[in-house]
Amino acid sequence: MSGEHDFIESLRALATHPAARNLEDDTAVLEIGSETLILTHDAMVEGVHFLSDQDMADVAWKLVATNMSDLAAKGAKPVGVLLGHMIGGDDMRFVQGLREALRHYDCALLGGDTVSGSGPRSFGLTAIGTATHTPVPSRAGAKVGDAVYVTGPLGAAMLGFEALKTGDEDEFCAFTRPKALIEEGQLLAPIVTAIMDISDGLLLDANRMAKASKVTFAMDTAKVPIAPPESRREEALRWGDDYQLLFTANRDADLPLLAYRIGEVLPRSTSPLLLDGSPPDPQDTLGYQH
Amino acid sequence: MSGEHDFIESLRALATHPAARNLEDDTAVLEIGSETLILTHDAMVEGVHFLSDQDMADVAWKLVATNMSDLAAKGAKPVGVLLGHMIGGDDMRFVQGLREALRHYDCALLGGDTVSGSGPRSFGLTAIGTATHTPVPSRAGAKVGDAVYVTGPLGAAMLGFEALKTGDEDEFCAFTRPKALIEEGQLLAPIVTAIMDISDGLLLDANRMAKASKVTFAMDTAKVPIAPPESRREEALRWGDDYQLLFTANRDADLPLLAYRIGEVLPRSTSPLLLDGSPPDPQDTLGYQH
Repeated sequence: MSGEHDFIESLRALATHPAARNLEDDTAVLEIGSETLILTHDAMVEGVHFLSDQDMADVAWKLVATNMSDLAAKGAKPVGVLLGHMIGGDDMRFVQGLREALRHYDCALLGGDTVSGSGPRSFGLTAIGTATHTPVPSRAGAKVGDAVYVTGPLGAAMLGFEALKTGDEDEFCAFTRPKALIEEGQLLAPIVTAIMDISDGLLLDANRMAKASKVTFAMDTAKVPIAPPESRREEALRWGDDYQLLFTANRDADLPLLAYRIGEVLPRSTSPLLLDGSPPDPQDTLGYQH
Repeated sequence: MSGEHDFIESLRALATHPAARNLEDDTAVLEIGSETLILTHDAMVEGVHFLSDQDMADVAWKLVATNMSDLAAKGAKPVGVLLGHMIGGDDMRFVQGLREALRHYDCALLGGDTVSGSGPRSFGLTAIGTATHTPVPSRAGAKVGDAVYVTGPLGAAMLGFEALKTGDEDEFCAFTRPKALIEEGQLLAPIVTAIMDISDGLLLDANRMAKASKVTFAMDTAKVPIAPPESRREEALRWGDDYQLLFTANRDADLPLLAYRIGEVLPRSTSPLLLDGSPPDPQDTLGYQH
């Protein structure tokens, strides 16, 4: 929508603080005294980001995980969250999921606001973390000659979503209880040139990173680790919600963890992305656009 | 609702971090390195906190002002905000109001999230400030023998709300464009024993402060400065949205600004509040309960 585009551009124009420089990163980097804070806010709306019949414990977990994944991509250590909660429905299950998620991330509930409302519910969460490495990495630093890496298989959340119908808990946890890669982010922050979490699909997010870095990523799609069978590779590359980390690093860098090399960084050509040598079809949305 | 009560109690039980100690204050006080951060989050829902036909610029202004008022009550200096925005309706007016409010408070838009949704819209705002005085004052510190003060007249927002129908802009600005008392809060922080902003009505908030401080406030209601005619005093004492500051201080303290002495702090008796010597009627809600 052009109205929406104008709105977002107007918001962007307002975000002139140096901390908001990388607004595309979904996070603010704020120097406060001797510390560098990482701040992020994500909202979830019933009917858009979750369904009315979903277990509210899973919704709370995911709300936390989404924010934690933004912190992970900055190499941040989680400190706490503030919750904006709309009362209605299974609030006690929501608290249960929130409790589990905060325990998992060793992160505190610091405060927030509880409101009443009618119609579709929405929740907002602000997460605060402290940088473990400065300068804090962004998605804009990929350099020509770097290699492109991903931390783990994609498409697990896709299988999990499908397993929701079959009731196989082992599989659907990948969708209902995604885990942000906090430790991995902290290990990677000192060595990456660019990093982001994959929330909307590998190809879409790789496209964003290449654009932000003003380079082209030449992806070797066969090298991307995937969770589903080979026949579903194209889908796995475009499905979101896996929260793996996508990063670039010098091709000779000594990686502190296992990661998969899936491409290389070239000077910017006509397309920010080359898939096995060719630009993607213009009709290809590459991932989950929202 | 008992379900709502259980839910809020459960949330409270989760908020074990020292920064969330005074969860009733609507703010978290977080020591980060050499600085003390103040964090607050407020949400506004269409049909509950604002009406569909309201100017969205005013809605944005109020969302910022509500959060800034929480910072004011901590003597904090605003640093920035993160916005959770649901697209739909007059988003450009929203941005306009947001721009005006952030300029007024010299506060930056640091980031946030923009989501689509259907049905009533909701917005969340997280504000971050730095303490200008430590220990950061809370609403729990009123001492027996202190005097109770308010910074200015109450009921101006009530008149403004009514003027919305008559179109008298001079008056309705008090309702549509409330101003948080940031400078006043910074001046008061070093000398108060307890402080909070009045968002839900003087009497209701005074009752909360007295409860939190485990004392009784004996209020001399005739001494409360009010904006409307004398005949509407009872309403003015119960109407919210004025964002004046309510505080207690030693009765001999040298106040750094003009404030009105409206009561005194007594040892806790049967009621946290005495109005001209008598406990309020148990049916009296004292203010805006939500």
